[in-house]
Amino acid sequence: MLENRGWTLARRPTGEPNVEDFSLQAVPLNPQVMEGQVLVRNRLLSLDPYMRWRMNDAKSYARPVDIGQVMVGATVGEVLDSKHPAFKPGDSVLGGGGWQEYAVLPGEHLQRLVGNVPPSTALGVLGSPGFTAYAGLIKIGMPKPGQTVVVGAATGPVGSMVGQLAKLAGCRTVAIAGGRAKCELAKTMFGFDAAIDHREPRLSELLTEACPKGIDIYFENIGGKVWDAVLPLLNDFARVPVCGLVSQYNEDASYEGETRLALLMRDILVKRLTLRGFIVTDFAQYRDEFLEMAAPLVASGEIAHLEDIVDGLEAAPDAFIGLLQGKNKGKLIVRLG
Amino acid sequence: MLENRGWTLARRPTGEPNVEDFSLQAVPLNPQVMEGQVLVRNRLLSLDPYMRWRMNDAKSYARPVDIGQVMVGATVGEVLDSKHPAFKPGDSVLGGGGWQEYAVLPGEHLQRLVGNVPPSTALGVLGSPGFTAYAGLIKIGMPKPGQTVVVGAATGPVGSMVGQLAKLAGCRTVAIAGGRAKCELAKTMFGFDAAIDHREPRLSELLTEACPKGIDIYFENIGGKVWDAVLPLLNDFARVPVCGLVSQYNEDASYEGETRLALLMRDILVKRLTLRGFIVTDFAQYRDEFLEMAAPLVASGEIAHLEDIVDGLEAAPDAFIGLLQGKNKGKLIVRLG
Repeated sequence: MLENRGWTLARRPTGEPNVEDFSLQAVPLNPQVMEGQVLVRNRLLSLDPYMRWRMNDAKSYARPVDIGQVMVGATVGEVLDSKHPAFKPGDSVLGGGGWQEYAVLPGEHLQRLVGNVPPSTALGVLGSPGFTAYAGLIKIGMPKPGQTVVVGAATGPVGSMVGQLAKLAGCRTVAIAGGRAKCELAKTMFGFDAAIDHREPRLSELLTEACPKGIDIYFENIGGKVWDAVLPLLNDFARVPVCGLVSQYNEDASYEGETRLALLMRDILVKRLTLRGFIVTDFAQYRDEFLEMAAPLVASGEIAHLEDIVDGLEAAPDAFIGLLQGKNKGKLIVRLG
Repeated sequence: MLENRGWTLARRPTGEPNVEDFSLQAVPLNPQVMEGQVLVRNRLLSLDPYMRWRMNDAKSYARPVDIGQVMVGATVGEVLDSKHPAFKPGDSVLGGGGWQEYAVLPGEHLQRLVGNVPPSTALGVLGSPGFTAYAGLIKIGMPKPGQTVVVGAATGPVGSMVGQLAKLAGCRTVAIAGGRAKCELAKTMFGFDAAIDHREPRLSELLTEACPKGIDIYFENIGGKVWDAVLPLLNDFARVPVCGLVSQYNEDASYEGETRLALLMRDILVKRLTLRGFIVTDFAQYRDEFLEMAAPLVASGEIAHLEDIVDGLEAAPDAFIGLLQGKNKGKLIVRLG
């Protein structure tokens, strides 16, 4: 009988998560593969900032992970056994296998990998991060040639795709990234016209200089002080797809203070801004359109992508904690066994 | 030679405007009607909250009124002389004649009144306020049967139209209004399902009770504490057309305080909210569609409207100050001579 090892949530973190918030559990694997289900050996595990939010017991768009439950996450794996007509042993599939070595999943939640590109791209540039960039930038942001697009976490899997898609759409692209090395990477690897270190005390001034015609699209995946610097620079009819707020995920805020909020509302009115929150699943109907556009460009190298691969299930919590601190370079993936 | 009397801006108010901020000036009328222009005798002057903002020297979607310049405003009037082929003496026209008895206007900025309804409706239910309600509710709010729509200043010309259009769309409608009398009026005259006095200290609780299924559309034309009460009740995918912020027009705020703003951003993300500022002119292409729908319903009485008519140009400043204090009932119009 096989053993299945996985990381469960040991306790809910307050503020930054700690290694002790996770617990590595081994359970015998006696998979009852039922009609419609598929047994998958997870090979690659995606680590993403949204997971921090799932560790809280707070109302959100998805259920929190329960204490003792295996941490959730997207995986690429190999089918070992299938009672679903669309899959057979040996198939490579994308699914939500979680932080563990094996998973039994409903066949209708699995997707076959697209050919001609490395399997890991299904977790990054051609997976949810890449599609998030596409949905937010194209469907909400509606970029037009000559407009200015600003994006945070610009060397991450979402931000780097936003920048490249905006460039393809003829926009001026401005990266926000943490540290000088990532700013260089944003320009050399992902073609940003300018890059600004968000740790700079002169963030507002530097952003103003980098956006001489103001900002038409701000792809929000950071929150906090970057948003503060962006807000006064937004042009009339600017669009702000709100995709994530990673700088706020460790915070535990309450409703207080009105002045700044009143000013945001004034700006929304006077500049006719659109702020729109979104989760990539809201745009499921555009996934095929995205893959048809992006997969050939990834295969040809015209769209660059950067992966940060960590080896072994054991490394997952440390890698995840580093992700929230901005230590990774590119899409963070754990290679399992 | 005729005399033209009009109210000019004497000084910029700080906070609530005062009668001394305006000055009644009489100038000889020697109208040089040039090619394409029309001389109009103003008969009805619309007073609207946005005018308070135009008295400030602040960046907004429209130029501020200069000191010494006649206050701006929409008017219905009678053509006295015309050098524009579309108009002849005796025609009734809608235009931006301002707070004065006569105006010379470019013919292309004038509109002929629609027949079969009183001329004053061109300033209210079938004018910019009614069309603002239509554009914001229908084009941004996209109401669906069974959804809950909340609107402030609910007996005013915009709010009362939002409520009635939402009711026609099959929604539950909740009014916010100032005082018990206006709350009654909202229910009896404009068919709101519930009405809440924004002066109530228990505003949040009362609103929660009135919206057992949450809020799908909040038509924002107030700002401040009403928005605070609405925010936690917004459903996933709620829409917030931001049309005005009358509670904030007298304020002079600066950028400070972040907590509340961070929470708004969290709500935008988690609930996938859309906030979108708009000015009615952004939707000019839908004006005919609006009039075709609304004019017959106003003529038949199926859409109710309420007017608060004040007599004489002299009364304009007092009436306007009262409007900002919520003293009017319905669309405030000054009848000129």
